Amino acid sequence: MSLLIVGTVAFDEVESPFGKTGKILGGAGTYIGLAASHLTENIGIVSVVGGDFPQKYLDLFKERNIDTSGLRIVKEGKTFFWAGRYHENMNMRDTLVTDLNVLADFDPVVPEHLRKSKYLMLGNLTPAIQRRVIEQMDPRPELIVMDTMNFWMDTALNDLVDVISMVDVLTVNDEEARQLSGEYSLVKAAKKILTMGPRFLIVKKGEHGALLFHENKIFHAPAMPLEDVFDPTGAGDTFAGGFMGYIAKTNDTSFENMKRGIIYGSAMASFTVEKFGTDRLTELSQQDIKKRLQEFVDLVAFEI
Amino acid sequence: MSLLIVGTVAFDEVESPFGKTGKILGGAGTYIGLAASHLTENIGIVSVVGGDFPQKYLDLFKERNIDTSGLRIVKEGKTFFWAGRYHENMNMRDTLVTDLNVLADFDPVVPEHLRKSKYLMLGNLTPAIQRRVIEQMDPRPELIVMDTMNFWMDTALNDLVDVISMVDVLTVNDEEARQLSGEYSLVKAAKKILTMGPRFLIVKKGEHGALLFHENKIFHAPAMPLEDVFDPTGAGDTFAGGFMGYIAKTNDTSFENMKRGIIYGSAMASFTVEKFGTDRLTELSQQDIKKRLQEFVDLVAFEI
Repeated sequence: MSLLIVGTVAFDEVESPFGKTGKILGGAGTYIGLAASHLTENIGIVSVVGGDFPQKYLDLFKERNIDTSGLRIVKEGKTFFWAGRYHENMNMRDTLVTDLNVLADFDPVVPEHLRKSKYLMLGNLTPAIQRRVIEQMDPRPELIVMDTMNFWMDTALNDLVDVISMVDVLTVNDEEARQLSGEYSLVKAAKKILTMGPRFLIVKKGEHGALLFHENKIFHAPAMPLEDVFDPTGAGDTFAGGFMGYIAKTNDTSFENMKRGIIYGSAMASFTVEKFGTDRLTELSQQDIKKRLQEFVDLVAFEI
Repeated sequence: MSLLIVGTVAFDEVESPFGKTGKILGGAGTYIGLAASHLTENIGIVSVVGGDFPQKYLDLFKERNIDTSGLRIVKEGKTFFWAGRYHENMNMRDTLVTDLNVLADFDPVVPEHLRKSKYLMLGNLTPAIQRRVIEQMDPRPELIVMDTMNFWMDTALNDLVDVISMVDVLTVNDEEARQLSGEYSLVKAAKKILTMGPRFLIVKKGEHGALLFHENKIFHAPAMPLEDVFDPTGAGDTFAGGFMGYIAKTNDTSFENMKRGIIYGSAMASFTVEKFGTDRLTELSQQDIKKRLQEFVDLVAFEI
C-alpha cells in the first residue's frame, strides 16, 4: 500500500446560514481518504465505525478504491457522531453534540499488508492512538504527516509532544501553532516547532490560505476566494488529504514538491466547502480539479 | 506633478509590546509620501500642520523630494495628534488620544501647479474633504485612488458613497469591505463595491495579505511573515504609497501592472512594521527594496 490514513469515520450533522443537513457521512479519515483518492491509488484506511454505519458509505470507499480492511465495524456499537453549527463568520462554530460511541475504545490494529505503507497520514485523534499506529508500521514510513488540534494541547500535552517528535510534517492552524509554541509570531512559532521533531510545519489559516515552513524557507499558499462557503466542515482534512495524495502520487518529499502538494490540498479544500459534507468531494471530476489548479496559478501570478 | 497625495501629517505616540515612543512623525499622508518617494519622483502633498511642527520633519519631506507647497502651516494651531496602544495581537489597538487640532478646520487648497497631477492618492480623511480635492483637479487625474475607514461608514455614509462614486480604486480592509457592502463573502462584497463607481477594489487583510478585484478577476498578494512586528502604525498607508508610487513611476494602470503595484505596496509595508513610526521607511535603500521584492517572489512561487 502506498498511503495509509488513520482518522475518524463518522456521522456529522451540520447547520450553517445556508441550511441544515440530516445525519451525513463525516470524519477526518473520510475527508482525507476521499480527497486523496482523486489524486493517487493504493490507499488504505484504519478506523472504526458501529453497526449503524450504512453499507452505501462502505460502498463509496470501495468505489473510490480505498482499502477498508482496516476499518473495524463494531456490530453492537454506534458510529462516532458530531453535530455543529456555523455562524455567518464561518471561522467560528459551536459544537452541539459529540458522541464518541465506538471511538471511545478505539485501539487501532493496522492489517499486516498496510504496515509497509510508504506514506502515513495521521488525522486528528488522541495522540496515544496516533502513536500506536506509528509503532505498528514496519519499516517506518518514508513520510509521516500528522494533524492535531488545540484540544490535545489542553488535555494531553505530554502525549502530544511525544508523537510530534516522531513525525515529519505537522499540520495545525495558526492559533494552535501559537498555543503549542507559546509564540505569537508565526515565524517564531514555526522555528520552535521545527525543533520539536518535524522537519516541515504546515500552518492552516482557513480563508487566508496556508504557510509551509522548512528550515529557513517559507511558502505561502492562498485560499481561493469563494462566493459562498456552504459548510467548512472537513476543509482542513480535505487539505491534508489532497496534500498527502499528491505527495504519494509523485513520490517526492522535497520542499519544492511539498509546495505543489499544498496547492493541491488547497484546491481540494476549496471544493469541499462549496457544498454540505462530502457532496462536492464525491462528484468531482479530474477536469474540475485541473481547472481549479489553474485558478490557483492565476490567483497569485505576477511578474516583477 | 506626477503624483499628488492628500492625507494627514501628524504626531503619533505609540505603545506596543516592544516599547513606547514619544511624540513622533505620523499621519497617512506622511507614510504614503515617504513610501512613494522610494519608487517615483515628482510627488506633491496637500495637508495641514500646526506651528508646533518641527523644521526637521519639513526637511525630511524635502530630502525625499516631496513638494510641500500644498502643506499649509497654521502658525497659531497645533498639529493633529494620535496616540494608540497595540496588544500582543497586533491587529487590535486602543486609541488613547485623538486631538484633531488644525485638522478640524482643514479646507484643502491644491496649489495651481499640483492640480494637473496625473495620479491622485486620497489618504483616509473626511469624505467631504476628499471630494473637495477631486473637484480642484483639472483635468481629472488619470487614476484616483482612495483610502477610507469604517468611521466614515458609521458617521458620513452618504458623503462617503458620493466620493467612492468618483474614484478609480478603493482601498479598505476586509471588515470595511463587509460593512460597506453588507456582504460577508469578500467576493460578493467586491462585486457590489465595483458597482458603486471604482473599477478596482483592494482589500487589505493585514498579516494575511491583500486582494485586488477588477471585473471578474482576483489577485491575491501575500504579506511577508515576519519574526517581529514592532509597530503596525502606517502599514496600510505605506502599502497605498508603495502601490501608488509604483503606478506613477511605471505610468501603467493595467490590471497586470496593478498586481505588481500591490506587491511593491506589500513590500514597503513589510518594512514599516519592522521599526517604530517612520524609522525603517526613512533609512531604506534601493537594495533593501530589491531584496524584499525577491523574497515576495520566492514566498509564493510554485510550478504545477
